Amino acid sequence: MSALFSKPLSVLNVGIGSFADAIVKRGGAASSLEWAPPANGDRQAGMALARLVNDPKIEKANDEAAERYLAAQPQLEGIGIAREALPRMGERMILHAGPPIEWKRMCGPMRGAIVGAILYEGWATDAESARAMAEGGDIQFDPCHHHAAVGPMSGIISPSMPVWIVANPAHGNRAFSNLNEGLGKVLRFGANSPEVLERLRWMEKTLAPTLRAGLEFLKDLELKPLMAQALHMGDEVHNRNVAASSLLIKRLVPALLKSSASAAEAAAVIEFIAGNDHFFLNISMAACKAMLDAAQDVRGSSMVTAMARNGVEFGIRVSGLGERWFTAPAPVVNGLYFPAYTIKDAAPDLGDSAITETAGVGGFAMAAAPAIVKFVGGSSQDALANTLAMTHITLRRNGAFTLPALDFAGTPACIDARRVVDTGILPVINTGIAHKEPGIGQIGAGVTRAPLACFTQAVAALEASLP
Amino acid sequence: MSALFSKPLSVLNVGIGSFADAIVKRGGAASSLEWAPPANGDRQAGMALARLVNDPKIEKANDEAAERYLAAQPQLEGIGIAREALPRMGERMILHAGPPIEWKRMCGPMRGAIVGAILYEGWATDAESARAMAEGGDIQFDPCHHHAAVGPMSGIISPSMPVWIVANPAHGNRAFSNLNEGLGKVLRFGANSPEVLERLRWMEKTLAPTLRAGLEFLKDLELKPLMAQALHMGDEVHNRNVAASSLLIKRLVPALLKSSASAAEAAAVIEFIAGNDHFFLNISMAACKAMLDAAQDVRGSSMVTAMARNGVEFGIRVSGLGERWFTAPAPVVNGLYFPAYTIKDAAPDLGDSAITETAGVGGFAMAAAPAIVKFVGGSSQDALANTLAMTHITLRRNGAFTLPALDFAGTPACIDARRVVDTGILPVINTGIAHKEPGIGQIGAGVTRAPLACFTQAVAALEASLP
Repeated sequence: MSALFSKPLSVLNVGIGSFADAIVKRGGAASSLEWAPPANGDRQAGMALARLVNDPKIEKANDEAAERYLAAQPQLEGIGIAREALPRMGERMILHAGPPIEWKRMCGPMRGAIVGAILYEGWATDAESARAMAEGGDIQFDPCHHHAAVGPMSGIISPSMPVWIVANPAHGNRAFSNLNEGLGKVLRFGANSPEVLERLRWMEKTLAPTLRAGLEFLKDLELKPLMAQALHMGDEVHNRNVAASSLLIKRLVPALLKSSASAAEAAAVIEFIAGNDHFFLNISMAACKAMLDAAQDVRGSSMVTAMARNGVEFGIRVSGLGERWFTAPAPVVNGLYFPAYTIKDAAPDLGDSAITETAGVGGFAMAAAPAIVKFVGGSSQDALANTLAMTHITLRRNGAFTLPALDFAGTPACIDARRVVDTGILPVINTGIAHKEPGIGQIGAGVTRAPLACFTQAVAALEASLP
Repeated sequence: MSALFSKPLSVLNVGIGSFADAIVKRGGAASSLEWAPPANGDRQAGMALARLVNDPKIEKANDEAAERYLAAQPQLEGIGIAREALPRMGERMILHAGPPIEWKRMCGPMRGAIVGAILYEGWATDAESARAMAEGGDIQFDPCHHHAAVGPMSGIISPSMPVWIVANPAHGNRAFSNLNEGLGKVLRFGANSPEVLERLRWMEKTLAPTLRAGLEFLKDLELKPLMAQALHMGDEVHNRNVAASSLLIKRLVPALLKSSASAAEAAAVIEFIAGNDHFFLNISMAACKAMLDAAQDVRGSSMVTAMARNGVEFGIRVSGLGERWFTAPAPVVNGLYFPAYTIKDAAPDLGDSAITETAGVGGFAMAAAPAIVKFVGGSSQDALANTLAMTHITLRRNGAFTLPALDFAGTPACIDARRVVDTGILPVINTGIAHKEPGIGQIGAGVTRAPLACFTQAVAALEASLP
């Protein structure tokens, strides 16, 4: 011991930093290793984790799930109407974002959007009776995710709405999403004024049929190469879709001009799409959903297959745990607010769009999109750091989605719930922020994190599910 | 002295590294500062430089030139025919890239392109007699740059060719360029087969009039914001124009559909543009030319206003030195060659496209375009380093062209010939590589440097021009 202290000490301090402070104060040198106990010190979760980490069956199941995700080849198959395209869509059913939630617990924007959908469907003729109808139990509410669908923000899909159909022939599954309405007063932020309903009707009567006619000349557009190209053009295909939307237009326009659509219809449709840099978002989400649903239901797998928010709760699903949701309160996002708004105006985190992060893009691919920091905050170094941090909680790099700024490394993908609990590194999500009152719309954007509690519950459930 | 050597030494070695080697060999430590004498040790150039560096009149002249460049607002005014649009275009004149050069010294691709232009104009009916005509002195050759014009690669503009017209109302000047033909067998690489001439005629008879009709509904498209947006989407608007071309299409299509163009013409034109990710290059070049011509002819200014290659010589022009060219042999580019080609097949550096680097984009904005390293070679770190190195030889940062990966710093712009000579840091250029035989086309791409000799000559001439 005295021999040890007679030499200069090389001290590595693990965990609580103040232990090293004492050494430094007395003139010594110490390096600090950032470390925290798994599951934030939750003993039960830590024990469950220890058993899962050492189980080769889980590694094998995760290999299977990850390979199914990597093998997915999402294609834009077409546009349908929700009532016909979604296999289990009910006649008086409205789908919403996030995990299940009943009317009385829903956030403002989601309620506003549901009132709008009821008016749009013609089930009621004024907002008051629409609200009464929603309250009275006449409408069946279901998460989009229960129908292989996803929707941004409140994520409302009602039976008459057009939906993108994305097929994944590699696994034989399909995924769906609604069509992007643009910014400003739009249903997904809870607006339901006549202009909003008018636009939804135009989308149903003109936009969708015109696009459908064009898509016949653009057979099964492969979405992974398009998303990959957009990642090389500064998009992360969640909150930045300007390149992907432009690339889509470049493919769509010649197809539209060959189709039966009239010049006036084609012009109106192209002008609508060209005016909305987020138009591709919903297609990106459906593509991500198609890739991840392929990885669902691998017994024993701890791979996360969905992260979604309903504006009250944040929920995740895990491949080996079927249709169960693991939820925690949705965080309010401390992001960049538009002028005149603050965090006090914000609804908690909302929307199915975190399916992009679940699939290794969005916040996970932020290194591809340094320009997005002007929108979500931080510096271009933070963008690189966020992507790199996600490598610690993921099973794979997705070689189909490469990141030029990281010398073409693949995006970190396939979140392992075990690693999230073990490291305490929480999945990063680039997100838009909705006003808590319906209809005001987007008031900011920011970078947020999935709550740890979702993952500790999932780890405990996975451990309990094993023989 | 003995006191000095009795303590541990802190050695900073400036210049030749081997002096420090001796210290390190004997167990000492030395840091090396990279340094070389100005003008590579050329005493006369060094003396001229010393006088120029201390002259406040030059600083003032450079402020004026740089401010004119920064204030430029290039707009896409329209499409004309060279014979009508270029004020001094002769009836039997052919413009070419780079500094002046006579037929017998021209490189293979330029000769091939000139033969093609003679056939396209109908001045001769076969290649043999076209060549004889060019040799015989019947055709007047002039650099594009002498007509406020620029052209990529051989840069051939003949009287019947359509040209982009870019106006800069801030200074009252106009710049011109030809239209991009796409890749493969194209005139600018020296091809002159019937299919090449057929395409040129289609560009004259269909592409240009259709675009002209559309541009009437897209009045004076501002090019700086479009280029700035493309820089946020991974382009450097020289060798990568995929985002800028997509953004242009997004603006053009609604305009075309409103115009008098038939659906078939619009479809053919859009398909042609959508199939060529370099379509925007020529517009980018004309915009750069318009910005730099505004900075020309400021007496005493050492700001570089053009860098251009004719496939034999590399030439530069300097604001304070009028229409003079300062030339040196054009380098052969040691880049990434397409399969089956090597540096032995390459023509020396060719084309007016280095006008983009002169204007602070292209290689100077490589930090915006990490994906380009797959095309020109190197790593994403090299891309950042190239941009940063250019800050040492430029007068300004262009706040209109920001670089997300460098936390939105402006691109380094306004090359100061003095600083190039002083530091030995040579302007970086991203360039395509042409086969030395006419008509084979592009065989690679790479990163090259402007030759020092152009700048030492310019510095000497500037010194001589002062009272």
